[in-house]
Amino acid sequence: MNNNDHQLDIFDLLPALIDLKGKRIVVKYGGNAMVDESLQKKVVDDIVFLDLIGVKVVVVHGGGPAISEHMRRVGLKPEFIHGQRRTDNDALEIVEMVLCGKVNNQIVKLINSHGAKAIGLSGKDGNLIRARKLIREVINDGNFDPVDMGCVGEVERIDSSIIEQFFKIGILPVIAPIGVGADFEDYNINADVLASHVASSIEADTIIYLTDVDGLMLDQDEPSSLIRFIDAPTAKSMINREITGGMIPKVASCIKALENGVRSGMIVNGTKDHTMLSSLVFPGEVGTMIRAGL
Amino acid sequence: MNNNDHQLDIFDLLPALIDLKGKRIVVKYGGNAMVDESLQKKVVDDIVFLDLIGVKVVVVHGGGPAISEHMRRVGLKPEFIHGQRRTDNDALEIVEMVLCGKVNNQIVKLINSHGAKAIGLSGKDGNLIRARKLIREVINDGNFDPVDMGCVGEVERIDSSIIEQFFKIGILPVIAPIGVGADFEDYNINADVLASHVASSIEADTIIYLTDVDGLMLDQDEPSSLIRFIDAPTAKSMINREITGGMIPKVASCIKALENGVRSGMIVNGTKDHTMLSSLVFPGEVGTMIRAGL
Amino acid sequence: MNNNDHQLDIFDLLPALIDLKGKRIVVKYGGNAMVDESLQKKVVDDIVFLDLIGVKVVVVHGGGPAISEHMRRVGLKPEFIHGQRRTDNDALEIVEMVLCGKVNNQIVKLINSHGAKAIGLSGKDGNLIRARKLIREVINDGNFDPVDMGCVGEVERIDSSIIEQFFKIGILPVIAPIGVGADFEDYNINADVLASHVASSIEADTIIYLTDVDGLMLDQDEPSSLIRFIDAPTAKSMINREITGGMIPKVASCIKALENGVRSGMIVNGTKDHTMLSSLVFPGEVGTMIRAGL
Amino acid sequence: MNNNDHQLDIFDLLPALIDLKGKRIVVKYGGNAMVDESLQKKVVDDIVFLDLIGVKVVVVHGGGPAISEHMRRVGLKPEFIHGQRRTDNDALEIVEMVLCGKVNNQIVKLINSHGAKAIGLSGKDGNLIRARKLIREVINDGNFDPVDMGCVGEVERIDSSIIEQFFKIGILPVIAPIGVGADFEDYNINADVLASHVASSIEADTIIYLTDVDGLMLDQDEPSSLIRFIDAPTAKSMINREITGGMIPKVASCIKALENGVRSGMIVNGTKDHTMLSSLVFPGEVGTMIRAGL
Amino acid sequence: MNNNDHQLDIFDLLPALIDLKGKRIVVKYGGNAMVDESLQKKVVDDIVFLDLIGVKVVVVHGGGPAISEHMRRVGLKPEFIHGQRRTDNDALEIVEMVLCGKVNNQIVKLINSHGAKAIGLSGKDGNLIRARKLIREVINDGNFDPVDMGCVGEVERIDSSIIEQFFKIGILPVIAPIGVGADFEDYNINADVLASHVASSIEADTIIYLTDVDGLMLDQDEPSSLIRFIDAPTAKSMINREITGGMIPKVASCIKALENGVRSGMIVNGTKDHTMLSSLVFPGEVGTMIRAGL
Amino acid sequence: MNNNDHQLDIFDLLPALIDLKGKRIVVKYGGNAMVDESLQKKVVDDIVFLDLIGVKVVVVHGGGPAISEHMRRVGLKPEFIHGQRRTDNDALEIVEMVLCGKVNNQIVKLINSHGAKAIGLSGKDGNLIRARKLIREVINDGNFDPVDMGCVGEVERIDSSIIEQFFKIGILPVIAPIGVGADFEDYNINADVLASHVASSIEADTIIYLTDVDGLMLDQDEPSSLIRFIDAPTAKSMINREITGGMIPKVASCIKALENGVRSGMIVNGTKDHTMLSSLVFPGEVGTMIRAGL
Repeated sequence: MNNNDHQLDIFDLLPALIDLKGKRIVVKYGGNAMVDESLQKKVVDDIVFLDLIGVKVVVVHGGGPAISEHMRRVGLKPEFIHGQRRTDNDALEIVEMVLCGKVNNQIVKLINSHGAKAIGLSGKDGNLIRARKLIREVINDGNFDPVDMGCVGEVERIDSSIIEQFFKIGILPVIAPIGVGADFEDYNINADVLASHVASSIEADTIIYLTDVDGLMLDQDEPSSLIRFIDAPTAKSMINREITGGMIPKVASCIKALENGVRSGMIVNGTKDHTMLSSLVFPGEVGTMIRAGL
Repeated sequence: MNNNDHQLDIFDLLPALIDLKGKRIVVKYGGNAMVDESLQKKVVDDIVFLDLIGVKVVVVHGGGPAISEHMRRVGLKPEFIHGQRRTDNDALEIVEMVLCGKVNNQIVKLINSHGAKAIGLSGKDGNLIRARKLIREVINDGNFDPVDMGCVGEVERIDSSIIEQFFKIGILPVIAPIGVGADFEDYNINADVLASHVASSIEADTIIYLTDVDGLMLDQDEPSSLIRFIDAPTAKSMINREITGGMIPKVASCIKALENGVRSGMIVNGTKDHTMLSSLVFPGEVGTMIRAGL
Repeated sequence: MNNNDHQLDIFDLLPALIDLKGKRIVVKYGGNAMVDESLQKKVVDDIVFLDLIGVKVVVVHGGGPAISEHMRRVGLKPEFIHGQRRTDNDALEIVEMVLCGKVNNQIVKLINSHGAKAIGLSGKDGNLIRARKLIREVINDGNFDPVDMGCVGEVERIDSSIIEQFFKIGILPVIAPIGVGADFEDYNINADVLASHVASSIEADTIIYLTDVDGLMLDQDEPSSLIRFIDAPTAKSMINREITGGMIPKVASCIKALENGVRSGMIVNGTKDHTMLSSLVFPGEVGTMIRAGL
Repeated sequence: MNNNDHQLDIFDLLPALIDLKGKRIVVKYGGNAMVDESLQKKVVDDIVFLDLIGVKVVVVHGGGPAISEHMRRVGLKPEFIHGQRRTDNDALEIVEMVLCGKVNNQIVKLINSHGAKAIGLSGKDGNLIRARKLIREVINDGNFDPVDMGCVGEVERIDSSIIEQFFKIGILPVIAPIGVGADFEDYNINADVLASHVASSIEADTIIYLTDVDGLMLDQDEPSSLIRFIDAPTAKSMINREITGGMIPKVASCIKALENGVRSGMIVNGTKDHTMLSSLVFPGEVGTMIRAGL
Repeated sequence: MNNNDHQLDIFDLLPALIDLKGKRIVVKYGGNAMVDESLQKKVVDDIVFLDLIGVKVVVVHGGGPAISEHMRRVGLKPEFIHGQRRTDNDALEIVEMVLCGKVNNQIVKLINSHGAKAIGLSGKDGNLIRARKLIREVINDGNFDPVDMGCVGEVERIDSSIIEQFFKIGILPVIAPIGVGADFEDYNINADVLASHVASSIEADTIIYLTDVDGLMLDQDEPSSLIRFIDAPTAKSMINREITGGMIPKVASCIKALENGVRSGMIVNGTKDHTMLSSLVFPGEVGTMIRAGL
Repeated sequence: MNNNDHQLDIFDLLPALIDLKGKRIVVKYGGNAMVDESLQKKVVDDIVFLDLIGVKVVVVHGGGPAISEHMRRVGLKPEFIHGQRRTDNDALEIVEMVLCGKVNNQIVKLINSHGAKAIGLSGKDGNLIRARKLIREVINDGNFDPVDMGCVGEVERIDSSIIEQFFKIGILPVIAPIGVGADFEDYNINADVLASHVASSIEADTIIYLTDVDGLMLDQDEPSSLIRFIDAPTAKSMINREITGGMIPKVASCIKALENGVRSGMIVNGTKDHTMLSSLVFPGEVGTMIRAGL
């Protein structure tokens, strides 16, 4: 089924919109959906409309291609290990500048220009995100070897009090994935993972991952293979099998959020029109909904 | 008199501290005071202590040398016209990245690591700063010629409601000098001027300009020539005469703030120990206090 | 232009909806729009959607044909003088029972079943409407003769504090046109006039009269004669000339509201689809907007 | 002992009044106490005084003779099965009109005219009372046969949030016994039973049933047989034995309230002077107090 | 007319009590009414009942005979000049100890034991009363000679914010007439005068002076000469003529309060039963009511 | 180590001060520290500074020598049994006058003159302290004989709601050790013991006993014998052995507070400069800290 078949007529949606009122939703926004300007506008329209009808939205974003692009501009070479950016101190400086000084700013401005009231945050603001160095291991000749990813961190604790205060005064938080250590070191955090932590810290109703595919599909080339509903244990068992590549951190983080009390997760295509809103008001028709299970 | 002669003993200061409680103070922080790390720590100590005793502090910062440095890194050539950076679109991207993604972040983190709760803002956050293109003129062959400064803006309106909300929930705002136009263009704004606008928008009691000299001096080489108190009209008459160079925008902005209801202005040396706090508790002994006049 | 041409697509409307947020709107609901059940549902959809997006709505309703019908059932004969129901004590008992025990209840239930939280009020609730006996005069042989309309009242004072409290706790008030005198007599009040008083008491942004024609028309049979915008003085001068019959109290009450500070008035066709919402988001395209004038 | 022997002197009562402050009391008002106008005034005086000294009062009322009277007026024949009115759709229309448009209005107005601030509610207002069809059975030839009572309902759920909000803003709720089903059908509910549900939903301290006898009496003709205190289990065992007729639903509902956490119940004579207040300040001297038991 | 003729039946009084709700009343309590224990109890009953029905009461008290008595006990000789106690430093110590450590405590305890929540204050608490040395003059050989009254003060300023905060949290303030100077000296203040200042600082509705006569009387021995209503200018013209002795400061202070916005003043007999409450509910029948005038 | 070695430089202390913010501290103030005026000023400086930085302070005080002195002045003979004043009715009158009308007043005034906002309370204010007669026993010929101490009481219950309300509105409570019985008798309470009850009733972080020695010392004449940290069980075992005389009630009360949830206790020398503040910011260096134990 094609998203575009849905007319977003107010009064068809009214009962679903009434149900959404007061809900808490974390949107992980990144990748290609963030690059195209006209797509950006539609995602932001969805966000602003949700805000208008009383949904409490938090946006967590990544940096995408802009980081690598700027790194190259200053003569640094992007390097990835198993899909995660190795971030030395020089890289980190660029990562933060792009994330906080460019991407975050831009999303905030776009949301505000459409009539909501957003404020950009990184983990440094109000000690929002406490992180620690992430130790990854790779299998090497049958051994697990730790790999130094540099300034890449994992979340230790989210202080959601600021998000709660923002909700109370009608401000929509837009969060860049930078955390601070007990040692006051900065860490770059995977945005998919961060979104999951943020969602459980605010006891979100739904976490939405915007991707560039229509959802979990058994066969990427076969639209009819889209999984409309799936429970978390089943989804978990599909990781590294049917679920591969960039979809893994999204699905794994989504499952983690469900295990920590978030009620449902959505994998939706952020490169198509208004799929985020559609997925909320037409669950099962747009995107894949992951539920906690039996 | 040397600042360092002042022992900042709690109980000597107590009556002055009691008087400060509940006051609103805007601090313009920039230049060299921002570069040296141990100086930074002292300025931040002052800010955190003021926050602790119930002073409502707003920090407005510039970018200083970091902007030019990063521009050069990406192959752009910094260009200044009468002390103001000409900012084309390419430059603006760097300006924002450095201001919001590096300098602002750093100040926020430093303040938070000392125990207060700061959040960084630019004019994009919550539509804080509405700006418009600044038209400057230079005298050219006896004619006033407009000069295109690029994306350099002047303040049209400060929406101080967010600052007020932050004050209520105990958050200290740290503001980067980026504004947004009605046309949703971004503008780089002079931080000295912005501080003045912010101060009048919140009806501040005091605006403090941190510089690298001890205050207004008739003779820079003669410490005894420091002016301890001056009224705004007198200060105004000294602009372009005794007051020159980088001191001009500070003093002019400070006078503007006084004309718009701010009660007093301070020009203090941010490169010496705890001069900000000292200037507040020992007015007349540290820095120059500018008062509205008769 | 036909109302039905408007697709009420959320994202076309978004900027207009953002503007509506927080506005205060009084809706006079009555006549035929109230009789047909499917029309009722659409009017209520509009009301519930406005409530959802943060508009503060008050509904004021009349009783329409239901009153006369029930009077006949108990053997009373409805009697009208210049379009106003003569209401003796026996009639008043029926009027109140129908207004409060049937019509008001029904509107409240319909609104609540669609997801908002309405509470029905008459002027007796919390002393909302203080009224006094209305003295009308008719021209008789060239003399003005007072006519005893019975228990028909005019508004002396609205105590809007309850409406304000309802707004604060998210309750939508639905008001039946019964007032109470200083003498504790009950009075039936013209609902068009009451809506005007309610609107000025809460400093409403807009008052909307739902009728069964498309707006003010110079020629009822000629759709193109619809007046899209008109100022209050011009409208006033048309009363008893182009404006006749049941439209007179609506337009006169609307003008009165504008004179007492309400910002705009709308005359819209409540028997067509979603004209109320359309008139708010497409002013000039649906219904007639009356503005205070120069 | 005669109630009238009590002088309601303020200062004799002061300690008892101080104890009442802040208590929550549900008053079931109906029957003959509601018919006589001078008795009404006294009951309302008691209610308004309790409100004045800070007691949180809720009034739940029935319709009494007014319903049957109006039904006859429109040619409907009242019909009762085991003391409960069979209510078909035609009857229900009249029941609602009389309850909400006449009886409720009148009580609200009377309370307000004495200086308190009451608002009338039915189960439709703010979805206060969710009901479902009541299935009753009668013994017929030794079998239990279900009897169709028509639109008679039983309480499924009370949403007391509106009552709580009214308490906070100083409004006294007066509740008519109409509920709404999940199917949006209206239901007539027994007011004695409704009072019990309301009382437990707000964790009332006391529920008071106003009747036309002095309390529970072993012999109606012998004043000295009045039971002053009784515990719930004992009272329960007396149902259908010493307790008969119209007293049964009152006592049974009262016991139900006690089982659901209400602290005490009173059966008092609403046709005598100020018995409600007297029963509260002279427990054991006026009316019968039912207590939860050991 | 004798006060005791009034039955303080709750329901006779109800309309008057409703009117009192929310009013602000300052009671000057002192002299003989304070000495007799059973009279104390009645005055306190009145105060507690007023508090119960939502009247905002402030009690201001004097010290009466207890001060002189204790002074004599420690060997000091009470000395009066024109009715005012000369208060040297030794005397002041005793004055404060008796006022704050005995009289105030006792009133507070009595009020609390009857069920209200009172807190005792002197001018030292929360800087409530700022005073300055009172300079009095006596006519001596035709000259005005200043007399040194010692530590006797006049009110410079009342900081009513604490009283307002107490009102908000349901606490009844009981104030002893001690003020503090800018020099941090303590001053004894005339309680009649203080009551007047307190009343105007909180914009009281009524100030009540409890005395030991029935009100203003043209002939103390002739009950029928009691003045029931009088306006302030007339009362003023009677000072030093019909009004003499200890009544002068009461009437003069009362007039001062009326000139500063208090709506009415009462002079009532605190040695008779419940005259304070009676004077409020039966104005014109008990005590003398002084009104601001035409 | 000598207290005076500590420079109370703001910025040395900053981290410790940040930690103190929001803490709750009960200070028992009495004895010699209260007599010397210049010492008083320093203790009050500490209190006012703690208040300034957001610490919630409660002061509980005793009466010290002033009571005995005043008793002698009125011809009463102070009498002590095992260190506790026997207080007959005559003595109690003096005790209250001195405690509430002299000592409490003075502390309140001193605190307020330094810029905080204190209000004095005794147990009578707002029913703060409910007490009952204390029965003590002495060993007499091998028997335990009860001794009548007169109006000496022990704490039955602290109603801390007033303290909490004072905290909320920024008022610092200063409490005199007078309680009231269920029988409305007044009781004199040991201030050391009262401080402990107050501390546990507000779940204080720290209770501080100001004494005239440097802390718990194994040898009073040997400064180096000062115990810096001790746990409650160890301290308990030292009572009547190493801990003797006036230190016993302090240590015993402190232990009791720890057993009831207070986190730490301090025994510090109130006769030296700023030892209270020093003990909080330099724990282990000034005074003895008693901790709950393992």
